[in-house]
Order: sequence, then C-alpha cells, then structure tokens
Amino acid sequence: MDSVKIFLNEADMPRSWYNIQADLPKPMPPVIHPGTRQPIGPDDLAPLFPMGLIAQEVSQERYIEIPEEILDIYKLWRPSPLVRAKRWEKALGTPAKIYYKWEGVSPAGSHKPNTAIAQAWYNKEEGIRRLATETGAGQWGSALALACNFFGMECKVFMVKVSYHQKPYRRLMMEAWGATCIPSPSDQTRAGRAILEQDPDTPGSLGIAISEAVEEAATRDDTKYSLGSVLNHVMLHQTIIGLESLKQFEMAGDYPDVVIGCAGGGSNFAGFAFPFLRDKILEGRETKVVAVEPQACPTLTKGLYRYDFGDTACTTPLIRMHTLGHDFIPPGIHAGGLRYHGMAPSVSHLLELGLLEAKAHPQTACFEAALSFARAEGHLVAPETSHAVLEVMDEALRCKERGEAKIIAFNASGHGHFDMGAYERYFAGDLVNYEYPEEKVQEALARLPAIE
Amino acid sequence: MDSVKIFLNEADMPRSWYNIQADLPKPMPPVIHPGTRQPIGPDDLAPLFPMGLIAQEVSQERYIEIPEEILDIYKLWRPSPLVRAKRWEKALGTPAKIYYKWEGVSPAGSHKPNTAIAQAWYNKEEGIRRLATETGAGQWGSALALACNFFGMECKVFMVKVSYHQKPYRRLMMEAWGATCIPSPSDQTRAGRAILEQDPDTPGSLGIAISEAVEEAATRDDTKYSLGSVLNHVMLHQTIIGLESLKQFEMAGDYPDVVIGCAGGGSNFAGFAFPFLRDKILEGRETKVVAVEPQACPTLTKGLYRYDFGDTACTTPLIRMHTLGHDFIPPGIHAGGLRYHGMAPSVSHLLELGLLEAKAHPQTACFEAALSFARAEGHLVAPETSHAVLEVMDEALRCKERGEAKIIAFNASGHGHFDMGAYERYFAGDLVNYEYPEEKVQEALARLPAIE
Repeated sequence: MDSVKIFLNEADMPRSWYNIQADLPKPMPPVIHPGTRQPIGPDDLAPLFPMGLIAQEVSQERYIEIPEEILDIYKLWRPSPLVRAKRWEKALGTPAKIYYKWEGVSPAGSHKPNTAIAQAWYNKEEGIRRLATETGAGQWGSALALACNFFGMECKVFMVKVSYHQKPYRRLMMEAWGATCIPSPSDQTRAGRAILEQDPDTPGSLGIAISEAVEEAATRDDTKYSLGSVLNHVMLHQTIIGLESLKQFEMAGDYPDVVIGCAGGGSNFAGFAFPFLRDKILEGRETKVVAVEPQACPTLTKGLYRYDFGDTACTTPLIRMHTLGHDFIPPGIHAGGLRYHGMAPSVSHLLELGLLEAKAHPQTACFEAALSFARAEGHLVAPETSHAVLEVMDEALRCKERGEAKIIAFNASGHGHFDMGAYERYFAGDLVNYEYPEEKVQEALARLPAIE
Repeated sequence: MDSVKIFLNEADMPRSWYNIQADLPKPMPPVIHPGTRQPIGPDDLAPLFPMGLIAQEVSQERYIEIPEEILDIYKLWRPSPLVRAKRWEKALGTPAKIYYKWEGVSPAGSHKPNTAIAQAWYNKEEGIRRLATETGAGQWGSALALACNFFGMECKVFMVKVSYHQKPYRRLMMEAWGATCIPSPSDQTRAGRAILEQDPDTPGSLGIAISEAVEEAATRDDTKYSLGSVLNHVMLHQTIIGLESLKQFEMAGDYPDVVIGCAGGGSNFAGFAFPFLRDKILEGRETKVVAVEPQACPTLTKGLYRYDFGDTACTTPLIRMHTLGHDFIPPGIHAGGLRYHGMAPSVSHLLELGLLEAKAHPQTACFEAALSFARAEGHLVAPETSHAVLEVMDEALRCKERGEAKIIAFNASGHGHFDMGAYERYFAGDLVNYEYPEEKVQEALARLPAIE
C-alpha cells in the first residue's frame, strides 16, 4: 500500500484492551499498604476507585472487553490515523521508514481521553457522580473534563501551578466541558496548605497535586479519585493505541523494528508499546522498544527501582517503580506531562526484565527535533511528544550512517496548540537544560521507605 | 453503514477540483479595472499573481486537475473525516440526521491550507520565492506560513491588529513554520501609515490588511500576493472539501437535504457547498444551501450587490459582490475570519440567482450553540464555525417541531484551540452583540463607485 495515512474503519476497531500482566515472564511485585506494610487488597483501594477499575488493576486476563458505551465515545475520533512520515524521512535523508500514530485528533488533543472515558464510565456504572484528579500540562485534566461531561458527572482538577499559569487555555478547555480547575498546591486541602506553608512560591508538582486530589476523594463520600497514568488499569485502557497500530501495520504490510514513546508516568508509551511487547514476549519478535524521558526528570535512566509513594504527602500505597524520590520537585520544564517523580510499575518492571530500553534527552534538543518534524510533516507536537520525536530522529540518522532501512514507529501522543508559549521561549533562546545530579539520587535513596 | 466517521482512503481522493463557473446558469459579471473602468485582462493581474492562478481565476473548465505535488501534501491530513453527529442529534432530540465535515484535522487547524498549498505551489512553479498576505483570525496566515514552509518560500503576514493581540499563539504558529507576522495597520506600508494617521487606535480590518499586503507585492519584484478567500481560484481549491464529502455521503448511503457553512469571504462555504450546488444545477437536486454570517458583519443579508473594491485603500480591481462598503470596519467580534466587508463574487452571484440562502446570527448565540456541540461531540470549534453550528441547531430543532427526518450537513471549518480567550469572554458574559443599522447601508451605498 502506498498511502501516507493508514485509516482503520470503525468496524475493524479492537473490541478488547490488552493486559500485559497476563504475559509477564515474572509477575510484578505486590503493591504495599503504607500502614501495615502488607500487600494491599481490593478493599484498601475502594475509597478511591470503583470496583470495576480495581478488578482491572489486578486482573491476569490477557484481553478485557471494551464496553459498548465506551467504544461509542471512542468512535468520535478513533481509530486514529497511522501516518508514514515520508516527507520527514526525505528531509533527514534516511533509508529508514518512519511511522507515527497520531493521537492529536482527539477533542482534548492527546491520547489521554482513551482512559478518561473508560474511568468515568466505570465510576458512573457504580453510581459515582463526582471525580477529583490532578493534571500537569493540562492534557489529563482536560481529558477527564471531557469524559465527565459525556456522563453528566462533576469534575474537579488540581493543576500543577507552573502549568496553570503557563497554559490558561487548557484551563478554559476544562471549563468549556464543565469542570472546575484550580492551581496546586491550593489552600483547599491539608496537603496543599502544608506545602504552601513551607514554600509559598513552589511551582508545584504532580506528586503534590496527586496528594490534593487523593485527599479530596478520601474525605468526601460523593467523590472518587482518577489518575491519568502510572496504574495498571490506565496502561490497559491506553493499549487501544498499540492494538489499532498493529492492525494498521498489517494493512501497510510492515512491522516496526523500533517502537518509541515518551514517558512521564508511562501511559502513552505503554499504550503504544505493550501490544508490540506482547509479540516480543509471545512470538519472539526482536523489536527494540524505547521509552524517552527528559534529562530534567530522569526517572528510568537515573532513578532507583524501589518501593516509594505515588504522591508527595505519602498517602498512597507503596509501589515498586523507578523513582527519584516522592519529594522530588522537578524544574519547571515545558513538558509538564513528563514531570513525575515515579514511573508506571509495569513499565519499570519491564525495564528491569530487559524488555525495553530508556533514554533521556534535554529539552532544547527536543524542541529542535519537533521543529524538524513540523516543517516536514506539518503538525506541531506537544513538548512531551517532542522527546519521542528526538529519539526517532537520532535513530533515523543512525540508520543513515549505517545504511539500514529500519522501520521506526512512534506515538505522536498530542499536539502542541496549547504549548505555543513554550515554543516562543525556545525561539527566544530562553529555555535552559537541566541535568539531575548523581548525588541527588543518593540523597533520594536515603529518604525512601525500607522495603525490599 | 453504521459508522460514526466515514473515512475515505487516499486512493479514492478526488484528483480534480470543481469549477462552478462552468455550470452557472448566467455568467458572472466581469472584474473591472479601477483606472480604465474596463474589464481587466490577465496582464492586469500579473503583478500580483502567477499566471497559473490567473488562468484558474477565469477558467470555464468544469474540472481542473490537482497537481501531484499538491495532492502529496494534502495527504498529510486529507481526506478529512465526515462525521455523523449522533450524540448531538440525541442531545437535541431531533429526528434529523446531522453530518459534519471535520477540517480541524489539518496542521493549521482549519480548511485554509487547501488553497494555501495550491497557491504556494503555483507561485513556486513560476519561480516566485516570497509571498505577502493578510490574515484576520490568523487561520489564513498560519495556513500560508505552513504552505510556504513546504516549498522553502518566504512568507510575510499582515495580521489584523485586534486578532494579533487576541491570538498570540496563532502568530507563534506562523513563526514556527518560518513566516514573519506583523500587526496591521503597520508603519511598513503607505496604506498602513495613512490609516494610523487617521486613527492610531483602529482595531484594523481585513480590508486594511489586504491593502498593505497588496502594496508590498506590487512594490517588490521578488514578492507576489496571496489571498485566502473571495477569488474564484480560492473557491476552486476549496472544493476538495465538498468533493470528498460527496464520496463519503455515497459510502454512507445518504445525501444531504440541507448544506450549511459559515461565510466571511466565502471560501469554506463555497468549498463545501459548490459540489452540492453542481448537483442542484445539473441534476435538479432540491438541496437547501445556506451561508451563515455574523450579524455584526452582514454582507450577504444587508449588504448591496454592487461593484466595490476588495480593500480599504481602493487599490484592487473592482468586483461585483455583496458589500458593506470598502471602508466598513466591523466591530472586533471574535470570529475574526468573518470580519470582511465583501463576499466572494461567486457566492454573491449564486445568491442573486436564488441558488442559495443567507442567514445572519449574533455571536453570543453562536458560542452557546458551539458549547452544545462540544458537550455532545467533544470538539471545540472556532468562533467562525460556530455560526454554521447555530444554523444547524436551528434547522435540527425545526425538524423536531415538524417531525421531519432531514439530512443536514455542515462544514466544521476549524477548531477553536487558539480561540479559548473568546470562550473565556463568553463565559464571563463579556461578549456584546452588534447589529448593523439600516441607515449605514444607505451611507455605504453613497460611497460606492458608480458602475452598473
């Protein structure tokens, strides 16, 4: 097929999500209760999540059927196109073939609604009428606002302060879909007030905003909590991306040698990569799978694989993951969605098993790569996505050096329409690169709970 | 077919544009030279446009083949989806079927690249390396910036001052694709300086910005002019929208009873509607075709069908069109792309022939309709598009009253990601509706050149 874009018809959409837990060569370490230090059970999570999602969190079934009502909403923009980046290949002069999955077509402009719709639906099914959450760049918050809107539910979003001010349009988008959005840390929670007391000028962090949203859900009977990344059920819902891509690659008559995604909490990466990892595990495919993170928040490349809290106030269960320490506050880089101290435990586990690789890149080089992509392919991607774009460019240029015609695939997780202020700072030469020093990793280690 | 979205494969894309001039029951009045008052010839337009586009401007051929290189760039995002708005139908409780053509998927976020790519290509073919243009809301300017980028051409954009300040992200988008963008009126042209002298605080207008861009092209040998609407060749390039839609309706097994588009200069409306008008003229289809404009700039509904200049400084040829007078400066409503004193002569002519209808709507009701659409279908549309959305809603509610299961189709010409500031003002209750008083039409009439 000689098409640039490979469209999948709605009739051919995947009807199930893929659960990688069924296929892990070694099971994931248990999640630990912060009080008892024993593995947690479903009841421990019940104050925060509906049972439908808790069941998915621990499920060992390989495929989980997507409810019809969720599929119906997916169809507003899915299946998303898989696009062959022929013009970019030519601009780079590479013999490699580059494909990208374009998640920027969703109403919120990113992959985030794939799980937001599912989470809101499972809550609605159990009678929940209100959700609280946090958001970094605003992509997750707007996705959950959109989802709650579809089911007539209330939505409260704690937005990391630095992004709240950098991206006012994201907040307005949430409001257009009926949600309430406030900057975090806020004075509306104990966790927020405690942080503000210590440092009134903090830029905020995802860890802090999670503490606030969890507190709101735990202290209000009418409210549950919703997380946009990290957890198993979130990764599960996102696999619609990779499952569609596999069908589209079959239509194109290709299969990728290299699969790349950016990783903050891990959900767009996992959603794209896990179905390819299934083939790697079950069929022995030799696919190179790469998660790309910012040098300013190098969770996978410099963090430790240890038990840690998901939030700053130490209120969540303890999960084993790559972490920079729950009190790590990353610098205010523009890829707000990648500023998380931890990483999805499933992604962390797969890295430990050697099934994937991790890379870290500085933000200015990422913006430069994003412009190379935009000038060839048109689309301006989000700063988060630009990390994947740079890794693809590096891989394509290696192919050029070696004369290798590899097939490279990446997840273009979102557009940058709400991030033009970041591009402006890049053009002005105002962006600084941060590298996380080794000694800080040691300090973080000392602060982690002693669980092995 | 029970799909929500109808995807057309690249292989089935239209290979020609449709030229409605071939099928007009009565030819359009000639364009008149402002000096000689005689019909102009191709040579009169040569300082501004390449011969390839001048030939299209006067062509009587029904179909004009789309050059391969233009098709290749269209394929970065085209064919765009045709979507059945089932959730909105349900929310409105209408028996009507509503379809929308979603042009928001282009890298610039609107239909504008359809002609920008074509115009840049025809200029490039004749050795032109630099284009000057004007832009209202910024949708056209960013589209031409994108197009020039693909062909390595320079691009200079005069942006209507009120929009320049309302929409900084649009300017940054142009800069990301390598263009230069300045607020109009500027001190860089004689036309701009003359206006600034009279009224330093003018919000600007498309008419003024056109004068500036035309002057830049006319006074620089290396530069041609590019117009994002009004002219025949622009309407021609946009027909890719309607031609794709017709194929998609055939796949869906439907044909619209009502075809709706918003109209500023007329290009998204024409691009969507002209192929349906072809069927109306040649096959006797009884399609109702409606152009929707803002009450604050009611060119078709209150303007006069007279010879007038396309710009404020009276430098362009005289064209017969619906006009509010070339010195009309509309209030700073948020649908910047609909703030033009004139209308495409082809659209005006078709209105005179009774082949289409026109409606005018106030902006607050348009935003309300856009939110109704967004809450059902997800997508936040541009303020321009919201005018079409309101007319569709009215039509769907009339169907409800009468129990009619009509098929309504509209062109969703662009997304509103760069217009969230307008939504903010709507939420805050800050938006005012303007109605253009009848006596002003009489005053405008007195100022028009006396040509019949």
